[in-house]
Amino acid sequence: MSEKLNQLKKLLGEVSDIGRAASVLGWDQQVNIPPKGHEARGQQLATLSKIAQEKFITDEVGGLIEDLKSELNGADNDDAAMIRVASRNYDKAKRVPPSFIAEQAVVSSKAFEAWMEARSKSDFSIFQPHLEKVVELVRKYVSFFPPADHPYDTLLDDYEPGMKTADVKAIFDPLRPKQVELIKAITSAKQVKADFLFKKYNEKKLIDFGVDVITKYGYDWSRGRQDKAPHPFETTFSVDDVRITTRFEDDNPTATLFSTMHEAGHALYEQGVNPAYERTPLASGTSLAVHESQSRMWENLVGRSLPFWEHFYPSFKKTFSSQLDGVGVKAFYKAINKVEPSLIRVNADEATYNLHIMLRLELEIAMVEGS
Amino acid sequence: MSEKLNQLKKLLGEVSDIGRAASVLGWDQQVNIPPKGHEARGQQLATLSKIAQEKFITDEVGGLIEDLKSELNGADNDDAAMIRVASRNYDKAKRVPPSFIAEQAVVSSKAFEAWMEARSKSDFSIFQPHLEKVVELVRKYVSFFPPADHPYDTLLDDYEPGMKTADVKAIFDPLRPKQVELIKAITSAKQVKADFLFKKYNEKKLIDFGVDVITKYGYDWSRGRQDKAPHPFETTFSVDDVRITTRFEDDNPTATLFSTMHEAGHALYEQGVNPAYERTPLASGTSLAVHESQSRMWENLVGRSLPFWEHFYPSFKKTFSSQLDGVGVKAFYKAINKVEPSLIRVNADEATYNLHIMLRLELEIAMVEGS
Repeated sequence: MSEKLNQLKKLLGEVSDIGRAASVLGWDQQVNIPPKGHEARGQQLATLSKIAQEKFITDEVGGLIEDLKSELNGADNDDAAMIRVASRNYDKAKRVPPSFIAEQAVVSSKAFEAWMEARSKSDFSIFQPHLEKVVELVRKYVSFFPPADHPYDTLLDDYEPGMKTADVKAIFDPLRPKQVELIKAITSAKQVKADFLFKKYNEKKLIDFGVDVITKYGYDWSRGRQDKAPHPFETTFSVDDVRITTRFEDDNPTATLFSTMHEAGHALYEQGVNPAYERTPLASGTSLAVHESQSRMWENLVGRSLPFWEHFYPSFKKTFSSQLDGVGVKAFYKAINKVEPSLIRVNADEATYNLHIMLRLELEIAMVEGS
Repeated sequence: MSEKLNQLKKLLGEVSDIGRAASVLGWDQQVNIPPKGHEARGQQLATLSKIAQEKFITDEVGGLIEDLKSELNGADNDDAAMIRVASRNYDKAKRVPPSFIAEQAVVSSKAFEAWMEARSKSDFSIFQPHLEKVVELVRKYVSFFPPADHPYDTLLDDYEPGMKTADVKAIFDPLRPKQVELIKAITSAKQVKADFLFKKYNEKKLIDFGVDVITKYGYDWSRGRQDKAPHPFETTFSVDDVRITTRFEDDNPTATLFSTMHEAGHALYEQGVNPAYERTPLASGTSLAVHESQSRMWENLVGRSLPFWEHFYPSFKKTFSSQLDGVGVKAFYKAINKVEPSLIRVNADEATYNLHIMLRLELEIAMVEGS
C-alpha cells in the first residue's frame, strides 16, 4: 500500500504545486500587475489550470485512488481522510473538460480586469458583459453534472461539501424575517454617534495599527505578508506562505481595520494547517463556511468587542487624537458596531452583513436559474 | 503547413506560459516572499520547470519542428526564424532529463535563500555548500551533451548561441592587458573628488529620481513596474508586463541610480519585442550579449554622459542640495565616472566593470573544469 500511497501523493503534490503557482499568479494580478499585463496573465492562468486539471484526472490517479480506497476502507487516519477528499474531488473534476477550465480562467481574468475598471469609474456597464459570460460558464459547468435537486447544489457542493441549497434555505428562511425585524428595531431606535468614523485617517498609521493587532492575534509574519488590493482577500501558497491583502478607503478607517482582522482570521486558519498535509488535498480549510467562521470570529467576536478595544483604544486614540477628540472607548465601541444598511458587504456591520449573505444567495440562485 | 504551424505554436505557447509563470514565481521569490516561504516555492518551481520541459521535448513537438523545417527551408521570414530557434532549443532540451531540471530548480531555490542569508550576514560559509551543489549540477548538465572543444562551450551556447569559449578568449585576451594598463594609468593619476557620492541620500527621493529618468528613457509603466530586491534584475512575464528591480544601499546613491538605468535598458529591449512573437521562442532577446549591449548603453553611454547630466543635474542637485553643496555638474560627472577597483560588479565603474566580466569568465571556466 505504501508504494501506491507514495505514488498518489507524488502525483497530487504536482497538481497542488501547479494550483499554488496559479494562486501566486492570481495574487500578483490583484496586487501588482501593470494595467496592460492582464491579457497575457489570463492566458498563463488558463494554461496552468488546464494542465492541473489534465494531471489530476488521469487514469493513473483514478486507479490509485480506487485501490487505496478499498485498502484503507474504514480506517480512521489522515491518509484515509486524504483519499476520501481526493476521491470526491476526482469524481467531480473528471466531469469537467480541461479546455473548459482554461476558458473559464481566461474569462475570469478579463472579467476581473473589467471589474476593476468598472469599480474605479463607478460604471457597471463596463462589467456587465463580462459578468454575463461568467454566469454563462457557471451554468455550463453545472451542465457537466447529473441533475441535482437544484442546479445551485452543484456549485454549493464545491464550497460546502454535501450541503444542499434546501439546507441553506432552511437555515436562512426562518432567520431572515427575524434579522430584518432586528435591524428595523435597531435603526428606528436612537442612533449612535459615528461621525468620527467618517473622517480622513492617515493610511500608513491605520495599516500599522492593523499590523499590530493581527501580530497580537498570532499572525506569523515569517510565513506571510500583507499588501494592498482593491478587494481584501487571503491566499495560500504553502503553509509557510499565507498572504493577506487589505484596502484603504478615504474617510472610512474601519474598512481597513476590519478587513485586516477578517483576512488575518482566514490566514490564522491556514497557517495552522498541519504541515504534514502540505501538497495534499487536505492542505486547506475544510469548507468555506468553516473558513468564514474563523475570519468572522477574529473580525467580530474579537475585533468588535469591548474588551478588545479596552486594550487597544488608548494607543489607537493617541495615534488619531484629532479625529477621536472627546470620544471615549464606549462611544467608539458603539460606533464600530453601529447597524446601518449599506451597499458593500465587506464593509457591512455584523447585523446587516447577514442580509448581504442572504441577498447574495438569492441573486446567485436567480442567476443560475436564469430567472 | 499552416495547420502544423498553428499546432506547433499552440504547443510552444503552453510551454512559454509555464515558463512565464515560473518567472512570476521567481520574481516573487526575490521581491516579496516571506522568510519561510522558500522551500515550498522551490518545489513549485521544480514542478513547473519539469512540466515545461516534458511538454517541450515531446515527439509531437519534435515531429512538427522537423516537418516545418523542411517545408520552410530557406524561407526568410518570422516563422522560419521561429522554427530555427525552436529546433535549436529542442535539440538541446531533448538531452536534459526533466527530473534533472526539477532537481536544479530545488537546488537553485535553496541556494538563493542561502545567498540572501550569507549576504546579509557577510558570511560566505553559509552559501558555499549550496554553490558547490550548483556547480556540481552545472557540470552534470554539461555531461548530457557531446564533448565540445571546451566544456564551458556547452554552457556559453545557452546564452550566446554558437559562440565558443575560444571566441570569447580571443576577444578578452588582447583587451585585458590594455584594460589593466588603462586602469593603472587612471588610478595613478590625480584622483577626482567623489566623497559627495558616499553620503546618505533619501531613499524615496533617489528612487523617484530614477523613475523620472527611465520614464524619459521611454520605459512604459502601463507595461511594467519597479520594485526593490537584493539584486537588481529585469524579468519578462509578457511583452506587456516587463518588470525591473533596483536596490538601495546606505551611503551609495549611484547603486540605485545606475541599477535602475541598467535594468531599464534591458526592459526597453523587452518592451520593444514584436507582439507577434508573444508565446513563441522569439519573444525575448537574441542573446545575453545583445541584451547587455542595451542595458549598458542606457546605463553608461547615456546615463554617465555629460549631456545627460547637463539636463538632469539641476533637478538632482535641487533634490539633494545638502549632499551636493558646492558640487557643479562637471565635478559630479567626473565623480560618477571615477575609476576605482571594487568588489561588486553591479556597482562597478565602466572601466573596471570589464575586468569583473573577464574575471568572472575565468572563475566560471575554472569551476566547470574543476581546476
